[in-house]
Amino acid sequence: MSTVKLVEYEDAGAEVKAVYDDIRQVRQTDFINNFWKALANYPATLERVWSAGKEVMAPGEIDAVTKEMVYIAVSVANACEYCVHSHTSAAFGKGMSETQYGELLAVIALAQQNNGLASGMQVPVDEVFLKE
Amino acid sequence: MSTVKLVEYEDAGAEVKAVYDDIRQVRQTDFINNFWKALANYPATLERVWSAGKEVMAPGEIDAVTKEMVYIAVSVANACEYCVHSHTSAAFGKGMSETQYGELLAVIALAQQNNGLASGMQVPVDEVFLKE
Amino acid sequence: MSTVKLVEYEDAGAEVKAVYDDIRQVRQTDFINNFWKALANYPATLERVWSAGKEVMAPGEIDAVTKEMVYIAVSVANACEYCVHSHTSAAFGKGMSETQYGELLAVIALAQQNNGLASGMQVPVDEVFLKE
Amino acid sequence: MSTVKLVEYEDAGAEVKAVYDDIRQVRQTDFINNFWKALANYPATLERVWSAGKEVMAPGEIDAVTKEMVYIAVSVANACEYCVHSHTSAAFGKGMSETQYGELLAVIALAQQNNGLASGMQVPVDEVFLKE
Amino acid sequence: MSTVKLVEYEDAGAEVKAVYDDIRQVRQTDFINNFWKALANYPATLERVWSAGKEVMAPGEIDAVTKEMVYIAVSVANACEYCVHSHTSAAFGKGMSETQYGELLAVIALAQQNNGLASGMQVPVDEVFLKE
Amino acid sequence: MSTVKLVEYEDAGAEVKAVYDDIRQVRQTDFINNFWKALANYPATLERVWSAGKEVMAPGEIDAVTKEMVYIAVSVANACEYCVHSHTSAAFGKGMSETQYGELLAVIALAQQNNGLASGMQVPVDEVFLKE
Repeated sequence: MSTVKLVEYEDAGAEVKAVYDDIRQVRQTDFINNFWKALANYPATLERVWSAGKEVMAPGEIDAVTKEMVYIAVSVANACEYCVHSHTSAAFGKGMSETQYGELLAVIALAQQNNGLASGMQVPVDEVFLKE
Repeated sequence: MSTVKLVEYEDAGAEVKAVYDDIRQVRQTDFINNFWKALANYPATLERVWSAGKEVMAPGEIDAVTKEMVYIAVSVANACEYCVHSHTSAAFGKGMSETQYGELLAVIALAQQNNGLASGMQVPVDEVFLKE
Repeated sequence: MSTVKLVEYEDAGAEVKAVYDDIRQVRQTDFINNFWKALANYPATLERVWSAGKEVMAPGEIDAVTKEMVYIAVSVANACEYCVHSHTSAAFGKGMSETQYGELLAVIALAQQNNGLASGMQVPVDEVFLKE
Repeated sequence: MSTVKLVEYEDAGAEVKAVYDDIRQVRQTDFINNFWKALANYPATLERVWSAGKEVMAPGEIDAVTKEMVYIAVSVANACEYCVHSHTSAAFGKGMSETQYGELLAVIALAQQNNGLASGMQVPVDEVFLKE
Repeated sequence: MSTVKLVEYEDAGAEVKAVYDDIRQVRQTDFINNFWKALANYPATLERVWSAGKEVMAPGEIDAVTKEMVYIAVSVANACEYCVHSHTSAAFGKGMSETQYGELLAVIALAQQNNGLASGMQVPVDEVFLKE
Repeated sequence: MSTVKLVEYEDAGAEVKAVYDDIRQVRQTDFINNFWKALANYPATLERVWSAGKEVMAPGEIDAVTKEMVYIAVSVANACEYCVHSHTSAAFGKGMSETQYGELLAVIALAQQNNGLASGMQVPVDEVFLKE
């Protein structure tokens, strides 16, 4: 019972089907990945999470690939295996180059390292960072 | 003894002074923030961390502001107070707009949320993400 | 050598057998899950961890299902795959409904999101939260 | 510039004022805590986060106090200082007893401990947890 | 109410006093640090946590200073400000040298960095690590 | 494309081959584990990460086994599956005893538990830990 059930389109209720249709429309593909099929067990959450994602990940003053890279960075720090896989795929799909991916990994690794050093030494925050 | 000592320029040895000089040169400012002053207690680590940072954070196929945003994302997920403060300041200093910062926060928050959902349901990784 | 050995009942020493017997007695089942079989390589730790768990997870002013939900929440935030699986199963076994599970996921996701926002903006703690 | 600006009611635009009014109405208090004042720099995010929170934290099959306890558990694991303070206060405000709080802490601590053990030994997930 | 009350010796009940006496005896000092004074609000937890700590942190095949260094490593990764401060102090008190501390920080930083790289690339575990 | 490609020796360029040769020389084995084969897609990062690791993990005032134990502790707290497996293997390879491993797990578990308690209660740092 603890293994998540994946809701396929043909087994979904109207509310879920509407979200699936919108996913397909926005992404211009029939493919629905497992994250949404799992969330579909909870239609209200599915609807809210999809809506938020559609709004937040759309290009704004930050472009779509950069948003995916930020998403990957968070997912790596949180050790979310699914999210790392799905958003690395998404980033490449939206145009991230192999070189950019290598640079992304290097920045994530540097931040991880320095997070450890700053937290380890409990470095006091400089006054200048606290002023508006 | 557990509170980190901050090494000022005038009290530093030659190895540390050389790094401080390079920081000032690269950043075009006399200001040395506490992270480096704390690391300066361990000159070999200071030198290695500064060198790596200089190389990794320099603009490449990913621009400097985007790299700062990725750095912030990791630091937020790791709850590193110092790093969040210092790199948010750095990102603004390098040209991040207020609107971009708002979008950055929204993407970080979305990823955090979805990391929780994917890890909570232990969603199986789609085959398509595992194929080259 | 880095892959954990699972200690079966028939191969266990007296100290481990006593814990296994108690697990079976308390849970009213013959099934011993891998967490305990792995810990059984270190009998003193097994004994201490089982005793603490038996005491802490017993219903008190917080009921047993709620305790499992809190346990799941921590495990999700820590990305502990084993713990998420075993305690989601335990929560359902103790009576968590499908609807409650959906609500649990939604609260975890909300907290994850807002943790990211509060840490990202380094929101100062309100005075009123610091007063007794 | 990296220190978050807190938006007071009288300085807020119409969109933010509407959310503040709703917060006051739902919570039956004039007090707006800093989390919302910080988020108010990004009105669309403020609106989405408040709406989601209002929906998710409302009592359902899980009662309001239990939801706060789950929220605290996630925030502790993520070391979110602000969230721990604000939601511990909220939980007490909604009726969590001192004894419940002590039990909550004990469950969080147990989960943290066992997360470390399960991840440290990389315990294989039992087949029975993976079957529906 | 969300700010923890610190229980002083003279205000403590018999159960708490007994633990405080044991802490003073084991550590050969009158000083009781805030962690215990906070836990003392929950005497059963105080007793269990102190007992476990006394047993686990005592020198065995791993010496006392090394145990403190491992403790610090976990606390840094979890961004636990209190624990980093208290156990860095404890490690120095038990004989950690300044050079050892510098090496400790470097290892923590390296692990943090490489955790990010391995999780970011989702490197498959080598067969040889999975065989006994 | 999101699944990492592993670069074998015979397919590697000169820069990567030089690092592989050095790994084999330093470790006195032909075996190259997947972490390096994955990193080899990004030769500059491979070189920097290997150099840092070689320097940091070499015995100093902290011996090699202790450094591996600290590395494991960080990796467990970060839930890095690959790193836990590879460095537990490395620690045993460098001479960690089964008893030491059991003690290591117990210290990690204790720290995890107490991190949860200290962060949960937001225990104020004692003045004495903040003085030099």
